[in-house]
Amino acid sequence: MTSLGEVFLWELLGTAVLTLMGCGVVANVTLSRSLGVGGGWLLVNFGWGFAVFAGASIAEPAGAHINPAVTIGMAIYGDTPWSQVPVYIIAQIIGATLGAVLCWAAYKLQFDTTEAPADTRGIFCTGPTVPNAPWNLVTEIIGTFVLVFWIITNPPASPGDGGVPDFGNAALGYAAVAFIVIGIGNSLGGPTGYAINPARDLGPRIAYAILPIRGKGSAEWGYSWVPIAGPIIGGALAALLALALPISS
Amino acid sequence: MTSLGEVFLWELLGTAVLTLMGCGVVANVTLSRSLGVGGGWLLVNFGWGFAVFAGASIAEPAGAHINPAVTIGMAIYGDTPWSQVPVYIIAQIIGATLGAVLCWAAYKLQFDTTEAPADTRGIFCTGPTVPNAPWNLVTEIIGTFVLVFWIITNPPASPGDGGVPDFGNAALGYAAVAFIVIGIGNSLGGPTGYAINPARDLGPRIAYAILPIRGKGSAEWGYSWVPIAGPIIGGALAALLALALPISS
Amino acid sequence: MTSLGEVFLWELLGTAVLTLMGCGVVANVTLSRSLGVGGGWLLVNFGWGFAVFAGASIAEPAGAHINPAVTIGMAIYGDTPWSQVPVYIIAQIIGATLGAVLCWAAYKLQFDTTEAPADTRGIFCTGPTVPNAPWNLVTEIIGTFVLVFWIITNPPASPGDGGVPDFGNAALGYAAVAFIVIGIGNSLGGPTGYAINPARDLGPRIAYAILPIRGKGSAEWGYSWVPIAGPIIGGALAALLALALPISS
Amino acid sequence: MTSLGEVFLWELLGTAVLTLMGCGVVANVTLSRSLGVGGGWLLVNFGWGFAVFAGASIAEPAGAHINPAVTIGMAIYGDTPWSQVPVYIIAQIIGATLGAVLCWAAYKLQFDTTEAPADTRGIFCTGPTVPNAPWNLVTEIIGTFVLVFWIITNPPASPGDGGVPDFGNAALGYAAVAFIVIGIGNSLGGPTGYAINPARDLGPRIAYAILPIRGKGSAEWGYSWVPIAGPIIGGALAALLALALPISS
Repeated sequence: MTSLGEVFLWELLGTAVLTLMGCGVVANVTLSRSLGVGGGWLLVNFGWGFAVFAGASIAEPAGAHINPAVTIGMAIYGDTPWSQVPVYIIAQIIGATLGAVLCWAAYKLQFDTTEAPADTRGIFCTGPTVPNAPWNLVTEIIGTFVLVFWIITNPPASPGDGGVPDFGNAALGYAAVAFIVIGIGNSLGGPTGYAINPARDLGPRIAYAILPIRGKGSAEWGYSWVPIAGPIIGGALAALLALALPISS
Repeated sequence: MTSLGEVFLWELLGTAVLTLMGCGVVANVTLSRSLGVGGGWLLVNFGWGFAVFAGASIAEPAGAHINPAVTIGMAIYGDTPWSQVPVYIIAQIIGATLGAVLCWAAYKLQFDTTEAPADTRGIFCTGPTVPNAPWNLVTEIIGTFVLVFWIITNPPASPGDGGVPDFGNAALGYAAVAFIVIGIGNSLGGPTGYAINPARDLGPRIAYAILPIRGKGSAEWGYSWVPIAGPIIGGALAALLALALPISS
Repeated sequence: MTSLGEVFLWELLGTAVLTLMGCGVVANVTLSRSLGVGGGWLLVNFGWGFAVFAGASIAEPAGAHINPAVTIGMAIYGDTPWSQVPVYIIAQIIGATLGAVLCWAAYKLQFDTTEAPADTRGIFCTGPTVPNAPWNLVTEIIGTFVLVFWIITNPPASPGDGGVPDFGNAALGYAAVAFIVIGIGNSLGGPTGYAINPARDLGPRIAYAILPIRGKGSAEWGYSWVPIAGPIIGGALAALLALALPISS
Repeated sequence: MTSLGEVFLWELLGTAVLTLMGCGVVANVTLSRSLGVGGGWLLVNFGWGFAVFAGASIAEPAGAHINPAVTIGMAIYGDTPWSQVPVYIIAQIIGATLGAVLCWAAYKLQFDTTEAPADTRGIFCTGPTVPNAPWNLVTEIIGTFVLVFWIITNPPASPGDGGVPDFGNAALGYAAVAFIVIGIGNSLGGPTGYAINPARDLGPRIAYAILPIRGKGSAEWGYSWVPIAGPIIGGALAALLALALPISS
């Protein structure tokens, strides 16, 4: 079993790379003096997908969760001890906040020169195109359900490998998870911007609230519970369904 | 041999994920208050391709058909017993309908607020840009022929793995099928929207007819036989050609 | 050693799928009543790349050349007997012509209804944006050199596997070649449309000359020798350089 | 251990292919008579990513660095002898210059006919959208840190394989590095055009200064130290952090 120190270290690093690159791609398409401005939704999704690829590869020694919804789903399913869950989640939130700060540093000059500085919240955290908490929750629940159900039904090749999914996708490693995340973004990201990960949303929202960003807008804390609750519910439902099914792995 | 219960369960779940994500990407590019609106044809194809990746990975215990044209092709080729074919197809149609309902739930607010609600049929099921049943059939036959012929000529690494194609593409697993589907969409999807799967078209068409979608248009049942007949004919031709060839797998 | 009959059969089928899908993606972005019209250069390249993936997978029993420049390069390098070269090339040209005919059938209604029928040659075969035979040759030589040099320096895992490149890219199989082709299209396809394969250009040009396409333009035979000579020279130079290098495979 | 001659040969060839294809994609989207003109940021990133895939595959016998920041990081980490570092770097710079010259040859007619010949520097080497040396350095440091830290924490499957990263991404080979580079471009390339490789920037800048390009602009030598110093600092920091961590590979 991985030690708590290793869990903390690698989950923090992996989640930091996740939000550094993930928030980075949204900065790239949003900020007016960035080379990728207006780059489109497929660019955003490949950005987040390969951010997951990078972050999960780095967090492999800890099982490569980098997402509290995955950690809670794995705990319900019985693959992660409940005693480790708080360490996973704390490391993920700290890492996600740190990654968002690094993203801001990488795009400092673009934040200083963008034409619509009040519209920069979306670089850090998600928001709905049509606000309505119950249906926004439904969207986040469905998206996260697909992610966690896929991870659980495509377990590691050998026991003890942590979260490497390769049952039927033998050697793709974390690229398989990246393809699933790109797919969820392509397909289910339209209404709410697909948080599907409470740390990915909360950490950067904290960073946005704290950082000295020129002319920044509101961090919209009123919505912040949706991308926390939705993914946790979706991940838990996926684990419960998987427990009810005859998986022969 | 996989039990009929497992076939039913995993094919239903895999096909539900297929149409949830596949219809989802079209909703994302079509509905006016979605983040991916106007995202373009490559986004649509990566959406459907990774929907196949997700759905097939989940349906692996049943052989990962998630498509009646594959099931019928495999039966003609001798890899799937004819006695199981009805269970496969019923599960696929129920799953495809269920996935489309979930897609509608994920995009409920966008359906309610879209500027052209009568043009939402294309989110669920396919239609020709130039209606002409015989030539539309030809297009669907050719597209599905490529899919099924590729699957049969790239069989699993080890017997009993179901539909995992990896002869010469050893470890790509279901990503290889996803690449083929993205390729067919890129290349042969222009005239009819590439159903290449009767369940993927019929299930969501049923959902569109039934669901309480604000201001919805016609389900266009008059065309619905083409994306059923074309893929079945294409899959059957692929299996017959493969039987006639000296494949040494 | 593969029999001449198998070489003929699988190279013909693989090259037919190559041009069916490759010409298909250009039809999709070009013809005004196609769903992918105006889809952009990345879509075109993923189209051709996954066409190579599909065609090469199918042609695996014959070594998956599907390109006379690869065949000649492999013969110079010593991996393919010169006695088989004519059979490879004849099968490739017949297959490439057949695939282009199937592409026309799939897009028949779009050819009949397109707004600029005289501009349809580019769907079938390549042409330079700035005509100048010597420099157009240079572009085709460089592009094909990259393709064939990469294939030769990334040989199969085990002897007798034909053209499966996986030294250092172990399990990607033909997806690795597809990535190289997408890369060449992205990077070196701008001036001439990257034939990099004499059969891919000549076969569809023959088809365009023969097919009863409404209002079609010239097949531009005056340019047709460039996408034949350039790729052959590029492939030969790659093989000669590889022979001169200390490759320890 | 790889001989110095092999290091020189394969690093030169691999880096030449890297800049041939990498500069090629920027030429393709920039030059007004190229087929990919205006192709967008995702096309640019897939261009550079698959350029890395091609170049690294070819440079495998030398460890596939093709980047002085990787070489220096590997030397600090202890995987590459310091005595070989100068040979690596000299080969990389010569190769990168040569590749840029070949790119110019491939696009000669487009350089001759482009509408804005003074704006062609960006085809060869990077520049900031908002000039400010300290913050531009920060961006290059962060981007290269991600690249080199990922490479070090995802080491080869077996000792002696050089730089093949496949711990947890077993069979992706150099495609895994390509995905990381595409990801860095998507996410962190917006402010400075992501050199993340001193040779990739310096070699083509030398080529731009020397080549007889019609109406060319300044090579902007005043900025040239940033894409040299930033990547070296980023790679060194990644190696130092990795040395401080309990990596159990």
